[in-house]
Amino acid sequence: MRLGIVDTTFARVDMARHAIEEIQKIAPRAQILRITVPGFKNTPWAARKLIVEQECDGVLVLGWIGKTLTDKMTYAVASMGLVLLQIQYGKPIIDVTIHEDESDDPKELYSIAIDRARKHAINLVRLVRGEDLSRYAGKGLRQGRPDVGPLFEDLGDRYLEW
Amino acid sequence: MRLGIVDTTFARVDMARHAIEEIQKIAPRAQILRITVPGFKNTPWAARKLIVEQECDGVLVLGWIGKTLTDKMTYAVASMGLVLLQIQYGKPIIDVTIHEDESDDPKELYSIAIDRARKHAINLVRLVRGEDLSRYAGKGLRQGRPDVGPLFEDLGDRYLEW
Amino acid sequence: MRLGIVDTTFARVDMARHAIEEIQKIAPRAQILRITVPGFKNTPWAARKLIVEQECDGVLVLGWIGKTLTDKMTYAVASMGLVLLQIQYGKPIIDVTIHEDESDDPKELYSIAIDRARKHAINLVRLVRGEDLSRYAGKGLRQGRPDVGPLFEDLGDRYLEW
Amino acid sequence: MRLGIVDTTFARVDMARHAIEEIQKIAPRAQILRITVPGFKNTPWAARKLIVEQECDGVLVLGWIGKTLTDKMTYAVASMGLVLLQIQYGKPIIDVTIHEDESDDPKELYSIAIDRARKHAINLVRLVRGEDLSRYAGKGLRQGRPDVGPLFEDLGDRYLEW
Amino acid sequence: MRLGIVDTTFARVDMARHAIEEIQKIAPRAQILRITVPGFKNTPWAARKLIVEQECDGVLVLGWIGKTLTDKMTYAVASMGLVLLQIQYGKPIIDVTIHEDESDDPKELYSIAIDRARKHAINLVRLVRGEDLSRYAGKGLRQGRPDVGPLFEDLGDRYLEW
Repeated sequence: MRLGIVDTTFARVDMARHAIEEIQKIAPRAQILRITVPGFKNTPWAARKLIVEQECDGVLVLGWIGKTLTDKMTYAVASMGLVLLQIQYGKPIIDVTIHEDESDDPKELYSIAIDRARKHAINLVRLVRGEDLSRYAGKGLRQGRPDVGPLFEDLGDRYLEW
Repeated sequence: MRLGIVDTTFARVDMARHAIEEIQKIAPRAQILRITVPGFKNTPWAARKLIVEQECDGVLVLGWIGKTLTDKMTYAVASMGLVLLQIQYGKPIIDVTIHEDESDDPKELYSIAIDRARKHAINLVRLVRGEDLSRYAGKGLRQGRPDVGPLFEDLGDRYLEW
Repeated sequence: MRLGIVDTTFARVDMARHAIEEIQKIAPRAQILRITVPGFKNTPWAARKLIVEQECDGVLVLGWIGKTLTDKMTYAVASMGLVLLQIQYGKPIIDVTIHEDESDDPKELYSIAIDRARKHAINLVRLVRGEDLSRYAGKGLRQGRPDVGPLFEDLGDRYLEW
Repeated sequence: MRLGIVDTTFARVDMARHAIEEIQKIAPRAQILRITVPGFKNTPWAARKLIVEQECDGVLVLGWIGKTLTDKMTYAVASMGLVLLQIQYGKPIIDVTIHEDESDDPKELYSIAIDRARKHAINLVRLVRGEDLSRYAGKGLRQGRPDVGPLFEDLGDRYLEW
Repeated sequence: MRLGIVDTTFARVDMARHAIEEIQKIAPRAQILRITVPGFKNTPWAARKLIVEQECDGVLVLGWIGKTLTDKMTYAVASMGLVLLQIQYGKPIIDVTIHEDESDDPKELYSIAIDRARKHAINLVRLVRGEDLSRYAGKGLRQGRPDVGPLFEDLGDRYLEW
């Protein structure tokens, strides 16, 4: 399994370090290739490079988005690029974006970033392995924050060791 | 008939269960293939996989979208991917998205999700079968809520057994 | 001349009936093929089918869009699909969309829908026939409402029999 | 040199007349081909036709956009189509759009439309000729309104005969 | 190394001059090709030309965006074009956009423009050279303004000579 990681110098947390740690725990033999770019708008270029030139089976993109409408549009534009790549090459790309308006508290933002990067690193491994995730479908799992759980259904397996 | 279902661990209702139940009722011999992904942004990847690798004739995508502007942009981006797939492969994809701002009442949101998943499951079977739906055209049919009916026209067949 | 019509069960007016009537008046030998889909997001799929499988020379898409921001984004996404189809296949697609926020008065909304469907049906025939419309350029023609006319120019031919 | 012009019957000023006048002044031997469509959303179809079937070297698109959010989204969608065409065929397309919210004064809107159409007609000729415009780079040139000039730099050549 | 620069006559600062200066300092043998277009919406056309016809290894796009919602949509549309080019041709394009709402003070806006152009010029050289930027990942680097640094991590190498 070859996994790509794309991150940015714009981000305020080194999420890749945490993602890599998590991948090595659950997939110790995975090869990890990483490209760091200045900002989110170059992540499609880097993800493409990892898929086409480095033959990665999946890519984790670690983005950091500011608070303005301009930032949000930038997010949408580059995110569209990541969707197009998935359609064109058939490889999963999970984009882990931290939006600065998710919290005014830097500590909380920091925790969101770490948690989201770690959980989505695991998600990427699962998608690349073709694991069946349907038993978690509709369970209200969250990355960056605690799971919210399903609405009004048997909550028996709510506290998943995800 | 091979039908694909894509759903997410982010959603708070297991809509696929309801959709599958409905499909089995009206198309008992349909083969159903399902991929669960973490969130809505990976649904185009999964839908492509079901169409290209699993040769599905149509796909039902069951999404769940948060309340923020970021969530809405995410919705637009991934939704665009699902439109592109339909154009590229010529297979119908119905995206059933539940937006958390559709209701503040969890019970109502739950009902919307179930109703929309069930009705659109039937819609997908009809599109794949090539059924002529023109007798329902302009009838104000709704999924997730009761039909609103047509404006100022003969309302004779308003209460369709849809 | 083969014309395609795509409409929805979501719409609250059977616009296709009016569009077809208009086409038959001005192009009685035109072949008309129609696909009805549940909502606007499946119209690109249907329009593609009419162009690629049914070899239509042009398509009229009759959509109906709700009032929320989500509805507007859905409109943009599917509309983008219709633009892409025109670029890919070189056939004109006119999308006649009625937005529920165009009027709070159902009667007015009804009139807008009928008028827009009829006028754009004529427009489609003209585009497919390759008619030169340049004499109407800049004339402030409207579909759904009365023409507004040009600004500060010779208004001699303002009341066109359009 | 073959130049295409696309305009609409929706616009309230016959901008093409002014654009053509300007082109004939500076490029009297240019061939000009024109297609008029109902509204902005069909301009990508017409621009493609002029590039692919009529072999135009560049296209001027003269659009007119209303004030609502729906109008703005329509603008974005069709404008995206014009960007895609430029990427696909490598021919410059300048889209001259007049937004009705640029001025509440019809006379001013009229002037904006004429000025923008004329200046961008010249711009198109220059792009098609491959003229080097770098001496005007960063000069704050405007179409539709007077140039605003550069910020805090030598203003020596601010009053260009553009 | 062949680098392309695209800028506009709309911008109010000649950012290319500063970017070129910076490139010549760190990559004196780089060939620099420049195309100036009227506004941001033609930058994808020019960037494509530099990549396809001039065989550039990377492109710096220097844009200037007004304050209105229309301007922001224009930004998103053209920016999407630049993402698509990167996906299609695999060459990095860094788009340096200055948004007029970033500051009400012209002097500050001027400084933002110069700083962003210079820093991203260096970034482009680094991406084209394939330099490993991962040691700067998550460091909160900014272009146009001073770096903000990482959140709650060892700040040892915060004051990078970037």
